[in-house]
Amino acid sequence: MSVTERQLPVHAPMNQFAVRGGELVVGGECLSLLAARVGQTPFYAYDRALLRERVATLRHVLPPTVKLHYAMKANPMPAVVGLMAGLVDGVDVASAGELKVALDAGTKPHEISFAGPGKRDAELRQAVASRVLINLESFREVAVLQAICSQLGLPARVAVRVNPDFELKGSGMKMGGGPKQFGVDVEQIPALLVSIARAGLAFEGFHLFAGSQNLRAESICEAQQKSYELALRLAQQAPAPVRFLNLGGGFGIPYFPGEQPLDLAPIGDNLARLAQRAQAELPDASLVIELGRYLVGEAGVYVTRVVDRKVSRGQVYLVADGGLHHHLAASGNFGQVVRKNYPVTVGNRADARERETASVVGPLCTPLDLLADRMTLPVAQAGDLVVVFQSGAYGASASPQGFLGHPACLEVLV
Amino acid sequence: MSVTERQLPVHAPMNQFAVRGGELVVGGECLSLLAARVGQTPFYAYDRALLRERVATLRHVLPPTVKLHYAMKANPMPAVVGLMAGLVDGVDVASAGELKVALDAGTKPHEISFAGPGKRDAELRQAVASRVLINLESFREVAVLQAICSQLGLPARVAVRVNPDFELKGSGMKMGGGPKQFGVDVEQIPALLVSIARAGLAFEGFHLFAGSQNLRAESICEAQQKSYELALRLAQQAPAPVRFLNLGGGFGIPYFPGEQPLDLAPIGDNLARLAQRAQAELPDASLVIELGRYLVGEAGVYVTRVVDRKVSRGQVYLVADGGLHHHLAASGNFGQVVRKNYPVTVGNRADARERETASVVGPLCTPLDLLADRMTLPVAQAGDLVVVFQSGAYGASASPQGFLGHPACLEVLV
Repeated sequence: MSVTERQLPVHAPMNQFAVRGGELVVGGECLSLLAARVGQTPFYAYDRALLRERVATLRHVLPPTVKLHYAMKANPMPAVVGLMAGLVDGVDVASAGELKVALDAGTKPHEISFAGPGKRDAELRQAVASRVLINLESFREVAVLQAICSQLGLPARVAVRVNPDFELKGSGMKMGGGPKQFGVDVEQIPALLVSIARAGLAFEGFHLFAGSQNLRAESICEAQQKSYELALRLAQQAPAPVRFLNLGGGFGIPYFPGEQPLDLAPIGDNLARLAQRAQAELPDASLVIELGRYLVGEAGVYVTRVVDRKVSRGQVYLVADGGLHHHLAASGNFGQVVRKNYPVTVGNRADARERETASVVGPLCTPLDLLADRMTLPVAQAGDLVVVFQSGAYGASASPQGFLGHPACLEVLV
Repeated sequence: MSVTERQLPVHAPMNQFAVRGGELVVGGECLSLLAARVGQTPFYAYDRALLRERVATLRHVLPPTVKLHYAMKANPMPAVVGLMAGLVDGVDVASAGELKVALDAGTKPHEISFAGPGKRDAELRQAVASRVLINLESFREVAVLQAICSQLGLPARVAVRVNPDFELKGSGMKMGGGPKQFGVDVEQIPALLVSIARAGLAFEGFHLFAGSQNLRAESICEAQQKSYELALRLAQQAPAPVRFLNLGGGFGIPYFPGEQPLDLAPIGDNLARLAQRAQAELPDASLVIELGRYLVGEAGVYVTRVVDRKVSRGQVYLVADGGLHHHLAASGNFGQVVRKNYPVTVGNRADARERETASVVGPLCTPLDLLADRMTLPVAQAGDLVVVFQSGAYGASASPQGFLGHPACLEVLV
C-alpha cells in the first residue's frame, strides 16, 4: 500500500439518525426543539423507533425458535425497560434493584432471569418470592436457596451459570475461561448438579456467557457453538431436562475509529443450525440469546450544551455543561486501556461545512473530564449542542452522577 | 544489588489505624462493632481524629501566615465539610451544588472560593448572590458577571485562575502548562485584567493550580516558587492590590506499591521563604494552599462484607457486597493507565498470621469490578470485612452508585 492510500481510521457512520435543516433528528424531533422540550441540558435521549427497529432486525436474522432476552443492566431506565419488555422474550436482571424495575415494567416472572456473582441472601430471597429464574453462581447459593425455599414454601427455579473452559476471542471484556468470579468452573459442574438435586431446587438449564462487546461474527459463532456443545455434555448429568439454555450475548457495536458494525448473517445461520440440532438433542430446551448493549446502545445519544469556547495556546476547547459525571465511558474511564474518542458531533450544526479541530471538555476540575480529544468537529459556539453517539448503553447508570455536585442529567425515551 | 536484595515494591504501612484484638480500629471503634452500628455494609468511614491530626500536622509545618483551604470536591459529605470548615481557613467549591453544602456547613462567604472551567450563568449568579470569591477562568465569565452585578446590585469578587507556562512535574494529573481548559493562559492575563477593570469587577488576586497527587516535595516547591514569581509579575498589571494568592495544592498520598508519603518539611521551609518575601512584595496578600485529597484521603476507609468465597481454577475470589459502583478509583477505572491495587486488608482479621493470595471482586456482572487483584491477604470467609485504605477522597462521590441497581453505600464520620 502506498503512503497516499493509507488513511487514519474513522468512526463508522452514525446514520441511524437523520439530519434535517442542519439538525440531528432524534425521536422524530430536531435536536434544538428536543432540548427545549426536555427543558435542560445535559440529557440522554433514546429513540423508540430505533429500539424497535433493532429488535425487528434481530428477529429477522435469528431463527424463530431462538428467544431474545434484554440484559437491562445496559440501560435500566424504567421507560426503556417497559418498552423492551414488550418487544423481547425475557429480561435479565443483575440485582434485586433491577428485579424491581423489571417487575414494575410488567415483565412476567417466568420471563425474568437473575445473574450475579455476589447475590446477597436477601436478594436470593426476593428472587424466590418473585418466582424468577436464578442463575446459580456458586455452591453457597445452593445452600442458601434450600433454606429460603423451606422458609417460604416456594420452589427455587435455577439455572447453572457455567464458567467454561474457553473464552470469547476478541472480546472487549472476557467473562469466561481461566479463573473467574463468574459462574462455576465447568470441572465443578457435575458436583454442583448433584447438590442442586439433593437440595430439591428446580433445575431448568444452563447459562454460559463468555464475553461482551465483540465485533467479530466468527468469534461469536465459535463461542455459541462451543457453549452449545458444552451444555449438551452437561445436560447428561442434569437432574431434569434442560428447558433453558442461555448462550450469552457479546454482540458489539462500533465505538471507536476503525471499528465496523457486526455482521449478523453468519450468526443467524449458525444459530439456525444449533436450533435445528437442539430440536433433536435437547427437545425441551429454549435457546436464548441475551443482549444488552447491542439492543440499546446505538439508539441513544448524550446531549450537552457548550457553555464556553476557549482557545488555549492554539487549541480550541468547547467547555460543555456535561461530561465525565454523566458519561464516564465516553471520557475513557470505564475499561478502556488507551483512551479513544466516541463518535461526537455538534448536533445543531450537523452538516456544517466549516469544521475545525476541537476538544470537548466538561465542567469538572479534572483533566479526566474529556468527551472529545482534538476531533474534527463543526465550528461551535456557546449555546450549541454537542452530541455523543452510541450512548444508549452503560451511560447514565454507569457514571458518577454526584461527582462535584453538578445537577444530574435527565433521560428521555422519545 | 544482588538478586536476593531485590524485592517487589510494597504498600506504605497503613498505620494511621490501630489494631485491637485483631480488628482494625476506626473512629475509636473496632471494625465489626462499627459495622454493626452503621447497620449495613458497604460503607465509608472517615475518622475525625485523623482529620484533625492531619490539619494540625500541616499547621505545624506551614508558616502561620499561610492559609489552608479545603477543596471539598475531594469529599463533599456534609458532616466532613462541616468538620473541615471549622479547622481550615477556607473552603473551595467546584459547583453551585458544592457551594450550597459549604454555606449550609456554616462556612463564611468570604472564606469560600469557586473554581471551575465551565461555570453556567446560573451558577455565577448564585456565586455573586452568595458573595463568595469567584476564580475567573475565561473572558466570557467577565461579561456574564458584569451583567449579573448590574442586575443584582452587588459586586463580583474575583480572582484570576492562571494557566501557567510551566507544569507540576511528576503529578498524577497535570492541570497547568501547555494548552488547557483550566484558567486563562498567562499570555492572555494582561488583557483579561484590563477587561476585569473595565467591567468594574472587584479584583482580589490570583489562583494557580499546576497539578495534583504529587509525592515529590521538590516538584511541589518548584511549582509554588514559580507560581509565586508569576503572580508577582502579573500583580504589576492588576487593577487592585493582590489580597489573595492561591498557590494551589498537589500534595499526594501513597496509594500504590512503592509509593512513599510526601516529605512536608521542605515544603514548609519553601513556603516560609515565600511568605517572608510576600510581606515585602505583596503586603496585602494572603498566601493560600488549597488541599483536598491530602487532608481527607488517609482518614477514610471503604468497608465491604464478603458474601462468598469461591475458588476458580486455583484462584481464590472473595466476592464482596461492594465494589466498583461505590469505589471506582480502587477498581482502577478513574485515571489509572495501568491498574494497581490500593492497600487492602481483611479488617476483622487484621493481624491474622494465616495469609493467602486472593482477589477481592464486587457483585457486578463485569470483570472491571475488581477491588484487589491477587493480593496477599488474611484468609477470609463469607461474613468477613474487607477494608480498602486511602479511601477518604474521591470515593463515594466519584463512583457510579446507581450502576446495576445495587443499594447505595452509607458514609459515616466517626
